[in-house]
Amino acid sequence: MAQWDRFLTERDKGVLAVWGKKDHDEFGQRPALLLVDVYYGSVGHERKPILESIRDWPMSCGLEGWAAVDRMVGLVAAARKNAVPLIYVRGMPSFPSDPSRVIERGKSKRRVDHLPAEVRRLDNEIIGEVAPREGDIVLGKTAPSAFNGTPLLHYLRQTGIDTLIICGESTSGCVRASVLDAQALRFKIGIVGECCYDRIEASHWINLFDMHQKYGEVIDVAGAATYFGSLGTPS
Amino acid sequence: MAQWDRFLTERDKGVLAVWGKKDHDEFGQRPALLLVDVYYGSVGHERKPILESIRDWPMSCGLEGWAAVDRMVGLVAAARKNAVPLIYVRGMPSFPSDPSRVIERGKSKRRVDHLPAEVRRLDNEIIGEVAPREGDIVLGKTAPSAFNGTPLLHYLRQTGIDTLIICGESTSGCVRASVLDAQALRFKIGIVGECCYDRIEASHWINLFDMHQKYGEVIDVAGAATYFGSLGTPS
Amino acid sequence: MAQWDRFLTERDKGVLAVWGKKDHDEFGQRPALLLVDVYYGSVGHERKPILESIRDWPMSCGLEGWAAVDRMVGLVAAARKNAVPLIYVRGMPSFPSDPSRVIERGKSKRRVDHLPAEVRRLDNEIIGEVAPREGDIVLGKTAPSAFNGTPLLHYLRQTGIDTLIICGESTSGCVRASVLDAQALRFKIGIVGECCYDRIEASHWINLFDMHQKYGEVIDVAGAATYFGSLGTPS
Amino acid sequence: MAQWDRFLTERDKGVLAVWGKKDHDEFGQRPALLLVDVYYGSVGHERKPILESIRDWPMSCGLEGWAAVDRMVGLVAAARKNAVPLIYVRGMPSFPSDPSRVIERGKSKRRVDHLPAEVRRLDNEIIGEVAPREGDIVLGKTAPSAFNGTPLLHYLRQTGIDTLIICGESTSGCVRASVLDAQALRFKIGIVGECCYDRIEASHWINLFDMHQKYGEVIDVAGAATYFGSLGTPS
Repeated sequence: MAQWDRFLTERDKGVLAVWGKKDHDEFGQRPALLLVDVYYGSVGHERKPILESIRDWPMSCGLEGWAAVDRMVGLVAAARKNAVPLIYVRGMPSFPSDPSRVIERGKSKRRVDHLPAEVRRLDNEIIGEVAPREGDIVLGKTAPSAFNGTPLLHYLRQTGIDTLIICGESTSGCVRASVLDAQALRFKIGIVGECCYDRIEASHWINLFDMHQKYGEVIDVAGAATYFGSLGTPS
Repeated sequence: MAQWDRFLTERDKGVLAVWGKKDHDEFGQRPALLLVDVYYGSVGHERKPILESIRDWPMSCGLEGWAAVDRMVGLVAAARKNAVPLIYVRGMPSFPSDPSRVIERGKSKRRVDHLPAEVRRLDNEIIGEVAPREGDIVLGKTAPSAFNGTPLLHYLRQTGIDTLIICGESTSGCVRASVLDAQALRFKIGIVGECCYDRIEASHWINLFDMHQKYGEVIDVAGAATYFGSLGTPS
Repeated sequence: MAQWDRFLTERDKGVLAVWGKKDHDEFGQRPALLLVDVYYGSVGHERKPILESIRDWPMSCGLEGWAAVDRMVGLVAAARKNAVPLIYVRGMPSFPSDPSRVIERGKSKRRVDHLPAEVRRLDNEIIGEVAPREGDIVLGKTAPSAFNGTPLLHYLRQTGIDTLIICGESTSGCVRASVLDAQALRFKIGIVGECCYDRIEASHWINLFDMHQKYGEVIDVAGAATYFGSLGTPS
Repeated sequence: MAQWDRFLTERDKGVLAVWGKKDHDEFGQRPALLLVDVYYGSVGHERKPILESIRDWPMSCGLEGWAAVDRMVGLVAAARKNAVPLIYVRGMPSFPSDPSRVIERGKSKRRVDHLPAEVRRLDNEIIGEVAPREGDIVLGKTAPSAFNGTPLLHYLRQTGIDTLIICGESTSGCVRASVLDAQALRFKIGIVGECCYDRIEASHWINLFDMHQKYGEVIDVAGAATYFGSLGTPS
């Protein structure tokens, strides 16, 4: 998990030796699994290396994205097995885009007319390998964070959820934004690092590092499964 | 400004060559200058290298923090000269801390009893070089973002401000969180990179890079001053 | 419009003679029309007096509700004629209900099994007379206010809307809650009194009175149409 | 408590006979007492009938306000005795006012220059009879609701509070707005009716009625004290 070390400077390591996070954050009794922006546009509709995939899908994270999705299958299964609620967020279909916003540039570029309509239609669709089932929560959002402008907080409050286990795309974008709001709202947070993905390697690893130092615990699928299994099926 | 390049991988550069940000974000007609967490605890009460300074002040960013503050003096002057409103945010004094939160660990560690009371008292005080004046807005906050749990949005709305020029500490913490909320709320955003500072070099540069790619325009003091000067004194 | 007078006490009139609102609130240059909870469950699927209608539809406002909807037809037409954006909000379909909440009691009572499925299905559907068209915004909500837990603010910010003209159901419930948030967020507000409706007459009139005194201007359809017409078609 | 009945129409009573609230809302295990806008300007600095008091203090609720404050003394004592946290909210001192807002009209009128400076200074001060003590939370606000633009939610989340017992001024203004946000955020709510006050009698009673029907349970001081006493001192 210390793969972020290769991006740190020697001075950074010196600072961390003194004040870096050493203990583990505790989780609560009622978690939910939050899957952020796991839509086809984030990996492309075919499994290709990123530099190839972005020719068709500008936001694609390529094979590393697909690898994260494949690991997510086990994470989703562990959540379902232990009756942990699943919450999916992704861009709200049909919400008007904001041409003046930086974040929209990618979207406008994303309209790749050479793709057949039935492929283009996949863009905002949740990836089949980890698709939601009846009873899961699926929310549309209009900002990076899963909280800002959505009823996520209402759902978490009315169900008594105290812990969010978070994964998805991009590590440095919507995952990071969702973690920030979850922390401001005093939820306990686990980030499943190997189920997060990003187009930029440096951003992926440094954002995982930042979140681990400041806001939550970066864990792996096995750690999440062990945690879910330790709870007993909620009544 | 491309000092972040040294943290990017070769593959990252390949992705950016295709889809990286190439044009400049536009700013609006009514900016405010937002100074985030420019308090003594973020640099220490004396100018010392970071590895020395953190012995007394665990959150200190050391000499690089002081250099950013020194550059901020010119930024603040340019804002005042052009009647651009100044808004300061920092931790709300007397708000009860939350011992279960990750972010609080640093704070608990920060209670360094060996410092004299009159020095310790400086911790949450805004640094004298850029101190607020009569008529500036000073807001307390209880989460990383300058927006979450504060009346900042109310102020920006009632004054018609459309652009936030942001600086302060830490680049990867409260600056980043404030930029995220500003973007979600559809403000135009400039981040004065050379007036932001962070304890971790990799986090500083990669967070500037992330914000520049996704949420706003990283500029320098000269660019901010030129922008402020171009507006004419607001009526 | 002073129909609320009959609910005020003599002492109230004495207080208002001194400090009651006397001037008119100004509106801005870019309004939107917000239609709150104009769904069949709020009036029933047939036009019947309230005491009859509530046998089938517990939340029904009866004939007074239908009369408000009929007046809303002209309001909607005036908005469309002048290219004023229309925004509809109503309960988010498929969001899990919260059995512990007071507000849900009505909903649980609303499951009237004696109605045919094709009639019951109308409950959360927007009333045909004022139905949304292609290009209108339709948002689901999970709390009384049109803002709380929705992307309404994002939409208003990105389109530069400064004024909300509000109508719908119930005057004392979701209309009032939406007006309160609009005011906190510093929008200019018009409430089209004759296009608001409520199951309780006293609540209808006193809530209109409260909103007029504190948060916005209670106007009629003619006043709204005149305002819309005065703007020129927005570019 | 059914003093609101005198404001209801006969038809209202018919509707309520069928669908009005009949059972009692449950409270939770960890309440806080929220005192809204209990500042001198809301009652005046001397105990006078409202029509006399408003000559000096435009927002004054007169003797009925003072009577509510006097009853609040027992409510506050019951909270302290049972270690229930007390939270005070009132206008944020030094936040710039918004001249375009309806709600500000009263404030501008409130600048009554004929009062001596030491009396005028009392305006935004919390009334001595129920003044906060060391350890209480005191928050400034810039909108009617105790939540909007304040860190109240952060505090409630980090302390695990699930129930708000609310009182203060005005029933139809800041109390109602705070109740609405508390309900949207899924807190359990008690409104101490006899410790709420308002300049307008009809608004006072109909707003209590509305809140009781939709959002929480209107109780009296004795009921609140019994509830607080039933909890055992929190660990």
